[in-house]
Amino acid sequence: MTESLAQSLTCIDCGATHALGYRLACEKCSGLLELRYDLGRLARTGPTVLSGTGLWRYAAVLPIADPAHRVSLGEGGTPLLDCPRLARELGVRTLLIKYDGPNPTGTVKDRSSATGVGAALQFGYRATSVVSSGNAGSSIAAYSARAGLRSLIFAYERASAPKLLHMAATTSDLVIYQGVYDDLIGHWDRLADAGLFFDCGASRNAYKHEGKKTIAYEIAEQTSWSPPDVVVAPVAVGETFIATARGFREMREAGWIPRVPTMVAAQAARANAIVRAFRAGTSITPLKIGYTVAEGLAAGDPGRKGDWVLRLLREQAGLAGEAEDDEIVAAQRRLARTEGIWGGPTGVATLAVLERLLRDRALDPDQTICVVVSETGLKTEAEPPSRAGVAFDEASLRTLVEERLGR
Amino acid sequence: MTESLAQSLTCIDCGATHALGYRLACEKCSGLLELRYDLGRLARTGPTVLSGTGLWRYAAVLPIADPAHRVSLGEGGTPLLDCPRLARELGVRTLLIKYDGPNPTGTVKDRSSATGVGAALQFGYRATSVVSSGNAGSSIAAYSARAGLRSLIFAYERASAPKLLHMAATTSDLVIYQGVYDDLIGHWDRLADAGLFFDCGASRNAYKHEGKKTIAYEIAEQTSWSPPDVVVAPVAVGETFIATARGFREMREAGWIPRVPTMVAAQAARANAIVRAFRAGTSITPLKIGYTVAEGLAAGDPGRKGDWVLRLLREQAGLAGEAEDDEIVAAQRRLARTEGIWGGPTGVATLAVLERLLRDRALDPDQTICVVVSETGLKTEAEPPSRAGVAFDEASLRTLVEERLGR
Repeated sequence: MTESLAQSLTCIDCGATHALGYRLACEKCSGLLELRYDLGRLARTGPTVLSGTGLWRYAAVLPIADPAHRVSLGEGGTPLLDCPRLARELGVRTLLIKYDGPNPTGTVKDRSSATGVGAALQFGYRATSVVSSGNAGSSIAAYSARAGLRSLIFAYERASAPKLLHMAATTSDLVIYQGVYDDLIGHWDRLADAGLFFDCGASRNAYKHEGKKTIAYEIAEQTSWSPPDVVVAPVAVGETFIATARGFREMREAGWIPRVPTMVAAQAARANAIVRAFRAGTSITPLKIGYTVAEGLAAGDPGRKGDWVLRLLREQAGLAGEAEDDEIVAAQRRLARTEGIWGGPTGVATLAVLERLLRDRALDPDQTICVVVSETGLKTEAEPPSRAGVAFDEASLRTLVEERLGR
Repeated sequence: MTESLAQSLTCIDCGATHALGYRLACEKCSGLLELRYDLGRLARTGPTVLSGTGLWRYAAVLPIADPAHRVSLGEGGTPLLDCPRLARELGVRTLLIKYDGPNPTGTVKDRSSATGVGAALQFGYRATSVVSSGNAGSSIAAYSARAGLRSLIFAYERASAPKLLHMAATTSDLVIYQGVYDDLIGHWDRLADAGLFFDCGASRNAYKHEGKKTIAYEIAEQTSWSPPDVVVAPVAVGETFIATARGFREMREAGWIPRVPTMVAAQAARANAIVRAFRAGTSITPLKIGYTVAEGLAAGDPGRKGDWVLRLLREQAGLAGEAEDDEIVAAQRRLARTEGIWGGPTGVATLAVLERLLRDRALDPDQTICVVVSETGLKTEAEPPSRAGVAFDEASLRTLVEERLGR
């Protein structure tokens, strides 16, 4: 089994270094913490330190020391799909979709659940909790069950039916909350501070956050360590975006890749606090938001991770963009029809944002562009087509087939 | 790219050998055809002939010659999960779940769609078709879109909402049929014979069937070429079961594995034609069936593949078992709660059948048992929990958490 090369928790604000352990904030300045690894060793070994398949192939750059705590449902190792037909439609040279639907619970959340619940085991907790719009809830519940831990899942009242069914089936305790994520997360964070459960939320826990870094490692490895010029990642609170950016930076610092991609932060127009601040050149003003079809992006107050996203965008010359709900739904259909990839609205918001940025000439279409599609379409709730069926005999069936297939 | 070692199409009834090509039946006796490979070469190379990841890692033992025709959405490479907690509950020593939910469209069908649509390209067709209860339809539609082909999908009127949405999004033509699979398939088969479309159905096309063989190859490789004693596979028409059994036999003949597992055929009690014939020691009497919650197993007349399943069971001392709808739903919940694996009713029917066979002492609990769970739970349609949400302040939230987590 691969050794974890995690060395410390470092404050992203004051730079103070803390020993590894379950800490949700810097003890000096209350800033967010990030994990740091033995970069010298990573530089010396190169990718030969990787072994096995799926997420835990990257165990060296994940913070779970004991292999017995590396809980798994087979997450990671998702496809990076070259999409020439869609690229032509959008007028770009090369378009890659990092499709995270084929994860055990159908979303990118399984990456952070593996390390989040792994950390709960590592630090001896018996119960996890999360405030979720649906995807994180399903995933934390599933991984907690897999690890033999209790889970207390707070789910958004407007989560889709497949998400609610999924959470109800896998968790030991489901609580539906009124309002949106922002209305509950502050209270919940205080209980996490009190140690009532292990924090599997998106706002602070560096261990949980860390699993998503494997998106960057997989993209890099799948492109033979020559990553794309641009990576478009979704932003609600910012976990996926930050983790992906950090993964690329880490690989660059260890000399595994020659340069980091330009990162694009994609938000729903109905929950666009970071995009607004980025454009205005200001800090973030929290928004009072309602529903967006991209349920997983429905956060109006991204908190301190939002500030971190903004800092990364500014430091690394990134971009931020948004898409309206109707554009997101159109992108969902387009991706399904042209490439057979059925992503959920939360997942394809990135593609809708890319389409807008291309229309606005904010991106060079001759670059290699990678879009993270973070969610399967199977969690979509919408009116299905009519079930009014037709009874066929052989003659009527032949007539229909000839009509439809143009013979 | 790995060379395909496919050599011929051989009749399973009369043994006649045909050159590779798009043939749906033996030209001598109208029997079903199966693909045969260069076993001598497989024996000499051993597993070193494998390369890459996912389904096409096994391209040597798949019948698609030109790498340009190896259509992919990232299928295969699904987890084989050791489930000690569930094993304890069921009283077996070792229980492995081969979980095929993390495929691009959420089911085992993606394996056969990759080779089926690949074969459509190989043989120059522009349109595919399938009669489906929902999973094959979504999958063939998705792979056809990915390959730039048209698809004409016939979908069961009682398919779940997530399946209908998925098919409608990915296919160029969706037709809902009245009745069950059996009512349409005979007519449709005649149109396939007439060449109106490429046959992506389960009843005859050896090329399409073949992709599912990779389940066996993956299970063998994931157990370091010492496969489990018993493999429980679902049977509607029999494609998954036959392909898995053939995969193990092929590896045995090539000397890759020391022995083949005992195969268990799992059916829904409401569509149990093969189980009845197996028990009675007779040939199959087609059944008039209604709805079963295991939608993908809703076939009362498995046709000639049913006979093939029966022959394999009798030749290789296999077993057949069935489960009622309520047992299937109970198995679905049990698997979700104990191991965090959310399978659909079609997918977990195998587990329900295993539970029954263990109760009946028809299986030795000291053996290593592998259950194929062929479908994600995200395609399940059921009443979601109430969305009546609660608004919290910090005090009421703390009270709830303390109550629920027993502090």
